[in-house]
Amino acid sequence: MTITFLSDFGLQDDFVGTCHGVIKRIAPGTDVIDITHGIEPQQILQGALVLASTLPYMPEGVHLAVVDPGVGTDRKALTGAWELDNPAYRLEPVSRTFHGRDLFAPAAAHLAAGVDPAELGPPLEPDALVRIDVPAATIGVGFVLAHVLIVDRFGNVQLNLTTDDLARLGIEPGTRVEVEIGLQRFYAYAASTFADVRVGDVVLYEDAYGNVAIAINAGNAAEMLAARPGDTVTITVRARA
Amino acid sequence: MTITFLSDFGLQDDFVGTCHGVIKRIAPGTDVIDITHGIEPQQILQGALVLASTLPYMPEGVHLAVVDPGVGTDRKALTGAWELDNPAYRLEPVSRTFHGRDLFAPAAAHLAAGVDPAELGPPLEPDALVRIDVPAATIGVGFVLAHVLIVDRFGNVQLNLTTDDLARLGIEPGTRVEVEIGLQRFYAYAASTFADVRVGDVVLYEDAYGNVAIAINAGNAAEMLAARPGDTVTITVRARA
Amino acid sequence: MTITFLSDFGLQDDFVGTCHGVIKRIAPGTDVIDITHGIEPQQILQGALVLASTLPYMPEGVHLAVVDPGVGTDRKALTGAWELDNPAYRLEPVSRTFHGRDLFAPAAAHLAAGVDPAELGPPLEPDALVRIDVPAATIGVGFVLAHVLIVDRFGNVQLNLTTDDLARLGIEPGTRVEVEIGLQRFYAYAASTFADVRVGDVVLYEDAYGNVAIAINAGNAAEMLAARPGDTVTITVRARA
Repeated sequence: MTITFLSDFGLQDDFVGTCHGVIKRIAPGTDVIDITHGIEPQQILQGALVLASTLPYMPEGVHLAVVDPGVGTDRKALTGAWELDNPAYRLEPVSRTFHGRDLFAPAAAHLAAGVDPAELGPPLEPDALVRIDVPAATIGVGFVLAHVLIVDRFGNVQLNLTTDDLARLGIEPGTRVEVEIGLQRFYAYAASTFADVRVGDVVLYEDAYGNVAIAINAGNAAEMLAARPGDTVTITVRARA
Repeated sequence: MTITFLSDFGLQDDFVGTCHGVIKRIAPGTDVIDITHGIEPQQILQGALVLASTLPYMPEGVHLAVVDPGVGTDRKALTGAWELDNPAYRLEPVSRTFHGRDLFAPAAAHLAAGVDPAELGPPLEPDALVRIDVPAATIGVGFVLAHVLIVDRFGNVQLNLTTDDLARLGIEPGTRVEVEIGLQRFYAYAASTFADVRVGDVVLYEDAYGNVAIAINAGNAAEMLAARPGDTVTITVRARA
Repeated sequence: MTITFLSDFGLQDDFVGTCHGVIKRIAPGTDVIDITHGIEPQQILQGALVLASTLPYMPEGVHLAVVDPGVGTDRKALTGAWELDNPAYRLEPVSRTFHGRDLFAPAAAHLAAGVDPAELGPPLEPDALVRIDVPAATIGVGFVLAHVLIVDRFGNVQLNLTTDDLARLGIEPGTRVEVEIGLQRFYAYAASTFADVRVGDVVLYEDAYGNVAIAINAGNAAEMLAARPGDTVTITVRARA
């Protein structure tokens, strides 16, 4: 059985390794795939987006995802929609600050070992779950106002926008646009991939997860545009001179 | 068989991956759990503390821990208390600078594959081992002088102090204290967890490994207090006004 | 079967984890060893050098290495010398920007699962492959002009130089030399390892991969010398006073 594991734990500390240990003690034969532990600390939205875009590439199994600013409060601990309240499937005593180790990793491991989810605790009404608002883009006449979702290692800037959104504005590969972010304004080209524009050009393209992203061919767009998750980006179809 | 692996190698270079390769060539069926490779370069004390606090969560097996400022000198290479001097269980030629690869990973792998520890070399007297001094906290009248052991990704500042130490000063959840670190002085609350205080408040709590730590609810204490491992921290029970 | 995996993907994003997922879906029993994902973004030469120096320590199997500034262009996708053009062994639709996920990881997994390389696509003439120039050192009379290849976590500065090169200049353990890098000039000693010189001394030694490297005993040479990959380093045998 496979457990995938995503968190904001980072790799500098022992948090991820400790959870691996906990899992392997409970379910020795389990194969753990670390999707990433580079979610920014406590950024639930980023965690949810990365989980959603990567799960289609993962084997069937148990999916352990922990981004938990509410650790230690009375927020409910779920798997799917079961509350984790059966002490038999926890590490006791449960700490107040590392539920990844004491609550979530053991639950994932017991599920991987064949325990029925209903054993872990009572089912929860879907309506009882808190839902995340993914910020929506605003499409106007000749422009779109979007938001930066994620900035990756290569400086690619993922937006909450699809190429369908761009198509509604008449933006398609080859179209020249203006991109405004913070106090900066750039010309950019829509393209199928960054290799379609000249080195150093700013490009709008559909990234590998189906979102529109901003890149610079052979450069680092996030650095040049000082783009950070949450930033507002305005894309305007450029008026012909 | 499981090998856990902790080091100061970091993940930027190939050191960890190379040791994994060496292990898998010798003991192909082995499951390697990376506890962490984020120990600060050559910080033996941090390595020892993290190893001690994480081993209880690890499966039984072989534990490979390498933080080795003395690589290339004549310091002895041990497993438990055996000196690694049998060339049959090394990668020859043994380099002068990467004993993780040439000496320690092979020994761990051979142990995992069933080799008797006594095969690796002669036993060593426990007295011949160098012991690490963990800095001790000083408990005075109405104050305690402690040290920062570890600062984690979330900015939590772990001290060489337990809640029993605090209890001897009459500090328990709800008590207001003064914390002095460097030239800065803060009010803080003792609490069971950081979620028990208001957002932005400084809190003293028992962390998941049983040490007292300083945190800021929804903030980064290490950054705000400019705390680094080794720093001195004075905690004073606040006189009533 | 083992797949080793080296890339410039870093560990901040999900790229590595996603490729692991893709591999495990295709070849569930595969053991993936991450050599490193810390290759500097798009530094093909560094990737090639690290791959060459680590493969001898890896188990037999499939070796997946992705450092791909040309992703999305018409550069050919190879394994060994087969072009990856058989759609049966890809994830369709193949994105324009993440061939690690859609092309290379699936090919590695299918090979690990027993698919014949010839199934993946037509063989390529070795002459059709682009070769990388490893910068050569210039050995003059009483000096050598070398280049920085890699700087590691510990600040060790690997050069494109072997101890044989040094021996041709009469430099051997114990010899005092001058090292010039950028506008800075240092005295250094050739030695078998950094532990052979005094703390704080600059040392030229043969590193664990057989290259000459510059280190500072108990210090960080890369920081002190502000050394970066590609920098020119001149080593001069010191004239007797």
